[in-house]
Amino acid sequence: MKVKISGVGLYLPPKIETSADIAPLIGKSTQWIHEKSGVRERRFSEIDVDKMGAIAGKEALNSGEAPDLIINASGVPKQTIPDTSTFYQKEMGFEGIPSFSIHCTCLSFITALHTASTLIFSEAYKRILIISADRGTRGRNFNEPESASLLGDGAAAVLVEPACESDNSELIYYNMETWPSGSTLTEVRGGGTNKHPQDPGTIPEDNLFSMDGPAIYKIARRQVYKMILKSLKVTGIDPSSIDWVVPHQASGKAVEAYRSSGIFDNEKVIDIVSEFGNCVAASLPMALVIGINDHRIKRGDLILFIGTGAGLSVACSLIRY
Amino acid sequence: MKVKISGVGLYLPPKIETSADIAPLIGKSTQWIHEKSGVRERRFSEIDVDKMGAIAGKEALNSGEAPDLIINASGVPKQTIPDTSTFYQKEMGFEGIPSFSIHCTCLSFITALHTASTLIFSEAYKRILIISADRGTRGRNFNEPESASLLGDGAAAVLVEPACESDNSELIYYNMETWPSGSTLTEVRGGGTNKHPQDPGTIPEDNLFSMDGPAIYKIARRQVYKMILKSLKVTGIDPSSIDWVVPHQASGKAVEAYRSSGIFDNEKVIDIVSEFGNCVAASLPMALVIGINDHRIKRGDLILFIGTGAGLSVACSLIRY
Repeated sequence: MKVKISGVGLYLPPKIETSADIAPLIGKSTQWIHEKSGVRERRFSEIDVDKMGAIAGKEALNSGEAPDLIINASGVPKQTIPDTSTFYQKEMGFEGIPSFSIHCTCLSFITALHTASTLIFSEAYKRILIISADRGTRGRNFNEPESASLLGDGAAAVLVEPACESDNSELIYYNMETWPSGSTLTEVRGGGTNKHPQDPGTIPEDNLFSMDGPAIYKIARRQVYKMILKSLKVTGIDPSSIDWVVPHQASGKAVEAYRSSGIFDNEKVIDIVSEFGNCVAASLPMALVIGINDHRIKRGDLILFIGTGAGLSVACSLIRY
Repeated sequence: MKVKISGVGLYLPPKIETSADIAPLIGKSTQWIHEKSGVRERRFSEIDVDKMGAIAGKEALNSGEAPDLIINASGVPKQTIPDTSTFYQKEMGFEGIPSFSIHCTCLSFITALHTASTLIFSEAYKRILIISADRGTRGRNFNEPESASLLGDGAAAVLVEPACESDNSELIYYNMETWPSGSTLTEVRGGGTNKHPQDPGTIPEDNLFSMDGPAIYKIARRQVYKMILKSLKVTGIDPSSIDWVVPHQASGKAVEAYRSSGIFDNEKVIDIVSEFGNCVAASLPMALVIGINDHRIKRGDLILFIGTGAGLSVACSLIRY
C-alpha cells in the first residue's frame, strides 16, 4: 500500500531514574538489574499520557494542517472511558476530528500503522496521526523486581499520508498472530470487569503489571523467529536488503535476541532499551523516531518492525520509509 | 466497499432485573425510572465479558471455519492488559488468530465495522469476527440514579466477509466526529493512569460510570441531526429508501429522538432500550441482531447505523445488508 510516514514526533520526559534510584525500591543491586532487565535508566513522566502524547503528536504535525483522523495506539489508557484519543485531541486544541483507540498492548503501534494504511488505501482518510504514549512506571509492582526494573515512560507519534507516485514509500507487508494460551503471562488484571475495584477480592497488585519474563521469552523467541522467516519468504526480500530492524524494546535480552539471531547484522537493530526501558506500546515508535532523528534511518530505507505483546501476540511489518 | 455481514450472534444473559428491582437501590420510584431512562428491565450477566462475547462469536461463525481476525469492539474491557480479544479467542478454543481491540466506547462497533471493511477491501483478511460485549451493570453508581437505571448487559457479534459480485451487500458510507469539549460528559475516570487505584486521591466512584445525560442529549441531538442530513446529502440517498435505522440505545429519550426526528418513519427505528437498557458498545449490534433474528431486517435492506459515544463522538454508517 502506497503510504508514507510524513512526520514524526517524540516526547522523552526530562526526569531520569537510574538503576541506583530503583535498586532500593525492589531490594536488588544495580548489577542484578543490569543483568536481568538490561535497563540502566528510564524516564519518569510527571505529566499524564494525554499531555505526553499531545507533545509528540504536535511535533509530528510539524505546524501543518490538522489530521483527519487521530488513532491512539497505546498499551494503557488514561482512563476507561472515554478512550485516550479524545484527550490527545483536547490537548492539541482540535475539535471535531474523528478519533479512536487500537489496543493490542505492545503491538498497538504496528497494528495501528497497518490499519491506518488500509484506511488510506480505501480513501477514507488522507492524514492520519498515530500516537503511542505510555507511563509504564505508574503500574510497577515493586514486589516483582524484574518487570519493575524494565518499565519506563515515553511517547512517540507518526503522521501517515498517501505516498505520491514518485515516492518509494509503502507498507509492504504485515502479519500478526495471537496465542491465548499465553494470555496470563503479561497482565494488568484490574481496570475492567474482571477484577473490578469495588470487588472485595480485588487486591492492589491486580492493578499493577505482572509478567513472567522467562516464560514469555521462551515462547516469543520461537514464534518471532518463525514470523521473521515467513515474512522474508512471503515477500521474497533478502535479509541483507533490510536496512533497519526496529523491534519492541521488551527487555535487554529480547532486543539482544534480534541482534544475535544470525538473520541481520548486529548494528542494524535499533536498541534503546538500556537508556529508556520498556515503554509498553510507545517503545517501538520511540525507537523509530530516535533512529530518524539521529539520521541513521533515511528516506527510502527498508525497515522491519517486529515485536511481541501481551496476548500473547507476535506481529511484524515491513515498510519502505 | 463490497463487504457482507454473513453471520450474526447474540448473547442475552438469562437473569432479568426490573425497574422494581433497582428502584430501592437508587432511591427512586419505578415511574421515575421509566420517565427518566425509558428502561423497564435489563439483563444482568453472571459471566464475564469474555464468556459473553465468545457465545455470541461462536453463534456468528455458525459452525463454519475459524475467522482470520478477531476484533473486540466493546466499551469496557475485561482487564487493562491483555486486550479482551485474546480472551474471546481463548473461550472459543482458537489459537494463533490475530486479534486486537478497537475502542471508542459506544461507537466501537460502527468504527470496527468500517475498519473491518477497509481491511477486507485491502485484501488483508477475508473472514473478520467483530464482537461487542459489555457489562454495564458492573460500573453502575447507585448515587447517580439516572445512569444507574440505564445500564444493562449483553453481547453481539457479526462475521464480515467479502461480498460476491452477485451480492448487493456493501458498506456505502461511514462518518465520525469527536468533540473533546464534551470529554467529561460521560466518564469512567479510573482504570488507567489518570485515577490509578494506588493513588490516595482515587475514590470508589472514579471506577463507576458518570454521565451528564441532559448535557449530552442537548449537544448530541444537534450533532446527530446534522450528521444524518450530511450522510443523506453526500450519498444522495433519499431517507424514504432507508429500510432500518439501527441506533445506539443510549436512553429512551435518545432513541425517541430518532423516531420523532421527522426524517424517518417511526416504525423504521429499531428500539430495544426499554427491554435491555444501554449496553454500552453492545447495544447497537444487539439491536441489529435482534432485528435480523425476528425477521424484520432482511437481506438487501438498506440500514443506517447511528449513535453517540463518550468522547463526545458521533458516528454513522450506511450499509446494504
